[in-house]
Amino acid sequence: MRQAGELGLIRLVRRMAGAEPAPGVLTGIGDDTAVLALTPGASLLATTDLLIEDVHFRRAWASPGDIGWKALAVNLSDVAAMGGIPRFALVALALPGVATIEEAAEFFQGFAALAHAHGVALVGGDTSSSPDGWMVNVTVLGEHAGRPRLRAHARPGQLVAVTGSLGRSAAGLRLLEGCRPAAGLPDDADAELVAAHLRPRPRVAEGQWLGAATGIQAMMDLSDGLATDLGHICAESSVGADVWIDRLPIAAATRAAAAAIGGDPVRWAAGGGEDYELLVTLDAAAAPAVARDLAAATGTALTVVGQIRSGREVAFLDAHGQSVAMGAGYEHFRD
Amino acid sequence: MRQAGELGLIRLVRRMAGAEPAPGVLTGIGDDTAVLALTPGASLLATTDLLIEDVHFRRAWASPGDIGWKALAVNLSDVAAMGGIPRFALVALALPGVATIEEAAEFFQGFAALAHAHGVALVGGDTSSSPDGWMVNVTVLGEHAGRPRLRAHARPGQLVAVTGSLGRSAAGLRLLEGCRPAAGLPDDADAELVAAHLRPRPRVAEGQWLGAATGIQAMMDLSDGLATDLGHICAESSVGADVWIDRLPIAAATRAAAAAIGGDPVRWAAGGGEDYELLVTLDAAAAPAVARDLAAATGTALTVVGQIRSGREVAFLDAHGQSVAMGAGYEHFRD
Repeated sequence: MRQAGELGLIRLVRRMAGAEPAPGVLTGIGDDTAVLALTPGASLLATTDLLIEDVHFRRAWASPGDIGWKALAVNLSDVAAMGGIPRFALVALALPGVATIEEAAEFFQGFAALAHAHGVALVGGDTSSSPDGWMVNVTVLGEHAGRPRLRAHARPGQLVAVTGSLGRSAAGLRLLEGCRPAAGLPDDADAELVAAHLRPRPRVAEGQWLGAATGIQAMMDLSDGLATDLGHICAESSVGADVWIDRLPIAAATRAAAAAIGGDPVRWAAGGGEDYELLVTLDAAAAPAVARDLAAATGTALTVVGQIRSGREVAFLDAHGQSVAMGAGYEHFRD
Repeated sequence: MRQAGELGLIRLVRRMAGAEPAPGVLTGIGDDTAVLALTPGASLLATTDLLIEDVHFRRAWASPGDIGWKALAVNLSDVAAMGGIPRFALVALALPGVATIEEAAEFFQGFAALAHAHGVALVGGDTSSSPDGWMVNVTVLGEHAGRPRLRAHARPGQLVAVTGSLGRSAAGLRLLEGCRPAAGLPDDADAELVAAHLRPRPRVAEGQWLGAATGIQAMMDLSDGLATDLGHICAESSVGADVWIDRLPIAAATRAAAAAIGGDPVRWAAGGGEDYELLVTLDAAAAPAVARDLAAATGTALTVVGQIRSGREVAFLDAHGQSVAMGAGYEHFRD
C-alpha cells in the first residue's frame, strides 16, 4: 500500500461504490457521513462485525476477495436473522504496508459481488494502515416493515429447525487447515465445503420469508455453532432445548470429508459454527406447511432438529434418547 | 481477557448499554441486529471509524477510557459536520489476551461518558480477541431533518472559517511524545493540550447550529488538519482557497507549548490534525452575524481564516501575502 497510499485506496473505494447513486443514497462516499433514506415507516436494523487476520481468517488460504465477501456475508446473515432487508454497508479496512492496491481491489471485488447480489450499496467507510495483519469491520444497515423475530420468542413445545445443512463450514475449514485436497474426496465435494467456509451465502431471502411466515417464533443465524447459538435463544427465552442428533441435516460432501480425514460430521454440525444458516423455533402444527412452502419459495430446506422445553440447557440426544456431549462453538479469549 | 472470556466481555457491554431502553431503541444489544426508530421524515446519517493501537494511539499514554472516548468522539464529529443529531452507536472491540476486563470496563466508561453527554445509545457491537494490540471500530448513526451541509458547496468569494482553536491536539501529542510536562509550561496549559488530544470534544451543538444558519455553505470536520481538509472541500467543490496564517486561532496554551518545546504553533494549527473543530465556508455578508450568534448560542468562537477563490490548490499566505509552505496532514501508508 505504500506506493498507492491512502488516497489511492480511497479512490478505489469510491470507484467500487459506483458512479450511479443507489436507491436511498442521498449522499454516498466522499462526505463526512453518508445521508440515507429508509422506506417510510420501516424500522432501522444495524449490525457490525470485525474480522481480524489470524483470528477470523488466515491469509494462507483466504484470498482478499474471500475476506471481502465474508466480511459482508456475516453481517447480511444477521439482517437475515431478523427477517429484514439489507440496504447499506460501511467498510473499515486496515491493511499492512506489504499489502498491494491490487489486493485491496480484490477485497472490494469480493465484497461487491455479494453486495450486488443483495442490492446493498457501499455508502461509507474508513481506511487505515495496520501495524500487523488485515483487519476489516463491516456495518450493515437494513430495514424491516413489521415485527422482527427476536431470540426471546422461544416457548416450550415449539420445534427447533434449521435451514440448509450444518457442518459444511467446519469441514471446509478442516480441509483448508490440512492443505486440501483430502485423499478419496471428490473435487466437487472439496469445492463445495471450502466455498461454504470462505464464501458463505447468507440466507437473506429465507430470512425474509420465514420472518413473515405464520408460526415462526424465535429466529437467529448460526454463526457460533448450533450448541452455542441455540443456547443464546434458550438464555434469552428462559427455556431449554433437546436436539436430536440423528435429525441434523448433514450434506453428503460433509460426510465424505469426515470419512476422508477422520472427523465426526455430527460434531461439526452441532458445534462447528460459521454455517450462517438460520435457526428458528416454530409452532409444531405449522412446521410441515412452513417447510414445504419455504422450499417452494426459495429452494431451501427447513429441517426440524429438536424441541424447546422447560429448563435452561441445550441437550443433544442420540437415537436412544441418551444425552451426548457436544463441544461448544468458538469463543474468543479461550486458552 | 483470558479469565473473563468473551461472555464476560459481552455481559460488560450489555451492562454498559444500560437496562432502560433509550429513545428509539426497539431492540438493543442481545439480538442479531439492533432495531431502531428514526424520527419520521428524517434522513439517516451513518459514519464509521477504525482506531488501531500504534497507528491512531499508543497505550503508553492513552488510557482505555481515553480510547473509548476518542473512538466515539471522531464519529460524533462527522455527524456534527453534517449538522446532524447523533442517536445510536455500535462498537466493535478487539483486545489482546493480556488486556483485562477492568481495562475493557474503563474503555466503555470513557465511551459512555461522551455518549451520555450527547444522548447517544449503545445499541450493538462485536467483541474479538486480537493477536496484537487494541483495535476499535465505532459506527455512529444519526439523523437530519433538513439538508445536510456538504463539502461540495464552496464557491469563490465565500469566506473560510473555523470553530474554536487549531493546533491544540498537535501540541498535546508533542507533549505526550516527549513525556510531559515540558519545562516552563504551566500545568493547566499542559492539561488543556493533552485533553484536547486524548479526549476531543466534538462540536455537535455547533454543527447543528451552523447547519441551520443562513449563509453557511460547505461544512466538514477537521480531522486530518486544515491543509488537508480544506483541500478536500476544494476538490469536491472544484475551487481553490487562500488561508491567512496570521488569522489562525491559536490558543495561548498552544503558543506556550510551542515556546517551551520549540515547535511552530502555526504549523500545528495548519497541518496538525485531530482538532475536531468544524471548518465552514460561508457568504461574506453573513459572517459577522453568524460568528456573533454562534458565540451567543454555544459559547464557541467562529474565526474567519481565509477565502475561497478559483483554482484548485490551498495556499497559506503570510501578512505580506506571500505563500508559505505548510506540511500536509496525516496520511496513512506514507513512508
